[in-house]
Amino acid sequence: MSPAMSSLSPQVVQRTPTEEEPPKAAPAFDAAFRARLYDLLRWRRDVRRFKRDALPEGMLDRLIGLACLAPSVGLSEPWRFVLVEAAGRRAAIRANFEACNKDALAMQEPDRAALYARLKLAGLDEAPVQIAVFADRDTTQGSGLGRLTMPETIDYSVVMAIHTLWLAARVEGLGLGWVSILDPATITEIVDVPKHWIFVGYLCVGHPQAEDDTPALERAGWERRHASEGVVIRR
Amino acid sequence: MSPAMSSLSPQVVQRTPTEEEPPKAAPAFDAAFRARLYDLLRWRRDVRRFKRDALPEGMLDRLIGLACLAPSVGLSEPWRFVLVEAAGRRAAIRANFEACNKDALAMQEPDRAALYARLKLAGLDEAPVQIAVFADRDTTQGSGLGRLTMPETIDYSVVMAIHTLWLAARVEGLGLGWVSILDPATITEIVDVPKHWIFVGYLCVGHPQAEDDTPALERAGWERRHASEGVVIRR
Repeated sequence: MSPAMSSLSPQVVQRTPTEEEPPKAAPAFDAAFRARLYDLLRWRRDVRRFKRDALPEGMLDRLIGLACLAPSVGLSEPWRFVLVEAAGRRAAIRANFEACNKDALAMQEPDRAALYARLKLAGLDEAPVQIAVFADRDTTQGSGLGRLTMPETIDYSVVMAIHTLWLAARVEGLGLGWVSILDPATITEIVDVPKHWIFVGYLCVGHPQAEDDTPALERAGWERRHASEGVVIRR
Repeated sequence: MSPAMSSLSPQVVQRTPTEEEPPKAAPAFDAAFRARLYDLLRWRRDVRRFKRDALPEGMLDRLIGLACLAPSVGLSEPWRFVLVEAAGRRAAIRANFEACNKDALAMQEPDRAALYARLKLAGLDEAPVQIAVFADRDTTQGSGLGRLTMPETIDYSVVMAIHTLWLAARVEGLGLGWVSILDPATITEIVDVPKHWIFVGYLCVGHPQAEDDTPALERAGWERRHASEGVVIRR
């Protein structure tokens, strides 16, 4: 991390306050901040088209530092970020995407298949930064707290770190695209990490070619967003 | 949703722009906003102690509306929010927590068990709002796009909706606690939803008794946060 970025780094490991020690004064979030946060949520996109420009110096470290502020079950911090840089590995991942995408295409109804084929589903050729993200279910950190009945909460913690990285990237004017049309076992092998790590997602990060408040799938006529009332049940 | 809140509701279903139609002007996020967003990430907590005060009128609808802005695989929006209100159902969920917590306690080393027992792991008795959140893997929305090789991305989408709700609650001065020491099959039965829905998490929401920038587990000496450098690998 560059010295200039250090002061902004959120993941500075500090002395842990005792239980008796009072917390610092909490920040207040005003209406103007809330409105801007809602803008952020509305304008976050799953980006597929990137410019090839590199990220500014130190930016990636900073984004990953912020991602590590995500909640994790039992404070297990099970996220593992694999920065995929070698051309050979990137090519192998692209090939796996192509194979899986072909299978996915065959599963679609004929009229949708043409549309599906037209959707550019990966920024694998353009994104300057690519990250394979894994969950280490075997981590001893947190001593297993909270995950006995639901070990998948380890994976969920990693998903929240990805989502945090996504939002943090967007406020820096960067885009993120999550590629899920991949075979987890193959990706684990390509990037050569422990076999027991759970592959959670493959992220493309870079400057987006365009910004939009409408999802690409909605613009392409694939699907539309629905009103939230339809997903709430009272019991 | 109350009329006063409607103008702030993010989940207003609008006409979908065509592919040719240019997007609106994207918002810029300045340094002041970014600093405040980092405060939000640092001060989000997994809250276990709540005041019993009800949420303001319309607040819950608004938070769920914001949660629905989360990314979802293939725009499937697979999140299902079950507002658990009936005293009998809440009591049954509390009983399931107690049973699972007892098992979890028995799994810990003796010296940690005492600490574990001391940690108040659930706001089940105090939180005015309790939500069981599920993922509908069978939804036809999105036509299966992006989830053939990794059907768990449906569950991951729901996790990101929960994380969005968590952040949105925090900027309103509210706290959220995610209870994971529960048996998924039992919870599904208690709240009487389709058996194929995947139980993702049980959320307690309300006004927190205290605010803190240090996780409760860290203050209690259970675990501490680690530097992000340790979770990055280059390949």
